[in-house]
Amino acid sequence: MEKHNLIVAQGGGPTAVINASLAGVVAEAQKHPEIGRIYAGRGGIEGAMKEKFIDLTDMSARDIERLKFTPSSAVGSCRYKVTEKDHDRIIEVLRKHDIKYFFYNGGNDSMDTCNKVSKIAGDISVIGVPKTIDNDLAVTDHCPGFGSAARYAAITTLEYGLDIRALPIHVGVIEIMGRNAGWLVAATALARTQGFAAPHLIYFPERAFDRQKFVADVKAAQAKYGYGIVVAVSEGICYADGKPVADSGMVDGFGHKIPGGTAQALSNILLQEGIKSRAEKPGLVGRASKLTIAKCDVDEAFEVGRVAVKSVVAGKSGYMVGYKRVSTNPYKIDYELIELAKVANVENVLPDNFINEAGNDVTDAFIEYCKPLIGGELEDYFRFEF
Amino acid sequence: MEKHNLIVAQGGGPTAVINASLAGVVAEAQKHPEIGRIYAGRGGIEGAMKEKFIDLTDMSARDIERLKFTPSSAVGSCRYKVTEKDHDRIIEVLRKHDIKYFFYNGGNDSMDTCNKVSKIAGDISVIGVPKTIDNDLAVTDHCPGFGSAARYAAITTLEYGLDIRALPIHVGVIEIMGRNAGWLVAATALARTQGFAAPHLIYFPERAFDRQKFVADVKAAQAKYGYGIVVAVSEGICYADGKPVADSGMVDGFGHKIPGGTAQALSNILLQEGIKSRAEKPGLVGRASKLTIAKCDVDEAFEVGRVAVKSVVAGKSGYMVGYKRVSTNPYKIDYELIELAKVANVENVLPDNFINEAGNDVTDAFIEYCKPLIGGELEDYFRFEF
Repeated sequence: MEKHNLIVAQGGGPTAVINASLAGVVAEAQKHPEIGRIYAGRGGIEGAMKEKFIDLTDMSARDIERLKFTPSSAVGSCRYKVTEKDHDRIIEVLRKHDIKYFFYNGGNDSMDTCNKVSKIAGDISVIGVPKTIDNDLAVTDHCPGFGSAARYAAITTLEYGLDIRALPIHVGVIEIMGRNAGWLVAATALARTQGFAAPHLIYFPERAFDRQKFVADVKAAQAKYGYGIVVAVSEGICYADGKPVADSGMVDGFGHKIPGGTAQALSNILLQEGIKSRAEKPGLVGRASKLTIAKCDVDEAFEVGRVAVKSVVAGKSGYMVGYKRVSTNPYKIDYELIELAKVANVENVLPDNFINEAGNDVTDAFIEYCKPLIGGELEDYFRFEF
Repeated sequence: MEKHNLIVAQGGGPTAVINASLAGVVAEAQKHPEIGRIYAGRGGIEGAMKEKFIDLTDMSARDIERLKFTPSSAVGSCRYKVTEKDHDRIIEVLRKHDIKYFFYNGGNDSMDTCNKVSKIAGDISVIGVPKTIDNDLAVTDHCPGFGSAARYAAITTLEYGLDIRALPIHVGVIEIMGRNAGWLVAATALARTQGFAAPHLIYFPERAFDRQKFVADVKAAQAKYGYGIVVAVSEGICYADGKPVADSGMVDGFGHKIPGGTAQALSNILLQEGIKSRAEKPGLVGRASKLTIAKCDVDEAFEVGRVAVKSVVAGKSGYMVGYKRVSTNPYKIDYELIELAKVANVENVLPDNFINEAGNDVTDAFIEYCKPLIGGELEDYFRFEF
C-alpha cells in the first residue's frame, strides 16, 4: 500500500492534556498501513514551517502512555500568529515531505488557519484538533484541556479556602487564567463541596468591574460568613471603560504597559479601604499540573487525537473534532466533526445564564454543565463545624 | 485511675500536615487511661485563652485518618502574638478545665511561649509540637510541614518549567514562601529531575538582592539554555539596604506599605530591561496542597503528635519534639526531646554551605540534605530531547 506521512503542529498555550491528543494521534496512526512517518512540528506550527520535525513513528506503547499523562507540550508550541502569507509555505512544506495528513492543534485562531489551509490543500487532508483551557471554542460542548484546568482551579480554590478559613485574617484573592472568557474562574465554584464555602465571590471578564460594588460585595460577604473570605477573579477583568484592572501603570523598556497582576490589584483596592487582604496567582501552573488532570479530560483528549486520524483515513478534511454531550447524568459525550468555518475565529464566552444577576457568582445551570467535566469528586477533606 | 484533660493549641500559619500532628495527639491520647477529655483550641492559642475548645475525645479512627490527610488547620489557628501578660491567663484556663497536658503547636516564637509557660506551669506538663513550612526551627534536623511544602515547590517549579520550555517566550519568575529563611526556595532545585533544567536561577532571602547581577544572571542563563528560563525567588528577598524587593511603593488606608509581589517585581525589572517576562505566585496554595503531601512528612508529623503524648504521660515537660537524622541513605530519623530554651526564638536560616558562591543556586550538600524529605521521586514526565 502506498504510504503518506502525517504531521501534527501546535499553536498557542499548552494544556495539561495537549500531549494526550498527540499521544492519541500517534497511537491511532501507528495502526494504519496508509500512514508512513508520524511527525510533530518541533516548537509548534512555527517550527513545522521551518521543517523542524520530531519523528514519533516508532514510539513505544509505554512512551505513548507516559506522554499521555505529561502536562504541557512535549514537542513545543509557539505564539506565532499564522497569516495568509504563511498558508502557501505550509502547503509547500507538506508537499515536500509527502505529508498527506495535517493536524493543527490549537484554539479558535488556529482553527481559522486550519480552515484557510484546508481550502488550498488539494489532496492533503486537514483536521483541526482543539485544545484550550479557556473553553472558548464554539459549537463543541467543551474543549480538551478545560476539564483539567477547571479541576486545578476548583481544588486550588478549595485548599486556599482551607488556609484562609484556618487563619481568618485576610480576604484572600486568587487569580485564575482566562483573559476574555470566564469559564475557568467560574469553575472555582466547584470548590464548594463537603460544606466549604469558598469561593465567596467570583468576578468574570464578561462583566465590567466596578470598584465600589466590589468593596460592598466583600463587606457583605464578611458580614455573612464572619471570617476571612476568598475571592476568585479572572486575570482579564476590565473596568467599564475597557481598562484592564491589572494595569500597573508602569511601562517596560519598549513602552509597553506592565501588568501588575489582577488579584494583587483587587487586594490593593481592599487594603486601601482598610480591609486586610492578600493575593495569589498560580498562573501558568494551573494549566501544567499533572496531579489535577481530570480523567475524563485526558481520555477525551486522547480520543480526539484518534478520531482525527480515523477521519483523515476515511477521507475527511476541513473539520474540527468536537464533543457533543449526549447526557449529563450519567455523563456521556459523542465525538463529532464540526465544519471549521463554524469555529474559526469565534470566541465562545460564558453565556449570561451561567452568571448570576449580581455578576459575582455562577448559576446552578453552570454547576450542572461543569461538574461532569472535572473528572469526579474532589479530594476528601475533613471538616469540623465552627 | 484519676483522669486529667489535654489540650492542643496552635499559633501561626497552617501547613499541609499540621492536622497530622493533631491526629497523632488524638490517636495516642485515646490509648491512655490517665487522659480524660482531649481538646483543641478553636482558632489557635487565642481561642484556647478564651476557652473556645473543640472536643476531640471521641473521634473515630476513620475521622482521625481523614484529619491526618487534610491540609491546613481544621481547628483553626491565629496570628495572635502571645506576650508575658498572657502566660498567667493560659495557666488559669488550663487549671479551670483540669488540663494537665498542654501542647503548643507552632514555630520558634511559639516555642518561646511554650518555654516560658512551662516554667510557671507547676504540675502541668508542657510540650512544644513543631510545625513550620519555613524549616527554620533550631536543633531539629527539619520541621513537620517542610517536606510537603518542599515537594509542592519542586513539583510546581518542574511543571512551570514544562510550560515555559514548551512556549519559550518569557522568563518565568515563580515566587516561593519563606520570608526570612530560604529552605523552601532552595527546595525548588529538586525539580531538576528526568533531564529538566528548571529552576535555572534561585534567589534567597539570606543574600542581598542586586538588580544588575540579577539581570546579568538571567542573560547568561538565556545564552546557555537557549530558551525561556525559570527563576525561583523567595518572597522575602531584600536589597542590600534592607528594603524589600516586593515593596510596591503604595500604602494602604492605614499608611502601611502594600507589597506588590516579589516575583512580579523581578519580572518588572526584566521587562524594563527589554526581556520578556512573567510572574506566578502560588503563595498560600503551596502550604495547603493535599496532592503534594510528602509521605514521610505526614507520617513524621503524626508521630510527633504521638511522641508528645507519650512524653507527657512519662512525666516530661519543657521540651519540643524534634527529629534527629540517623542516616540519609537509607533515610532514617529518630524522635528526640529538645529543651525548649534551645529553640525558643532561634531562627535557623539556610546555612552558607547550602548556597552556591554566586548566591543564585543551591549546593550538592543541600540536595543531599533535602532529597529524602520530600517523600520520594516526583511524578513521571515524558521528555523529548530538543
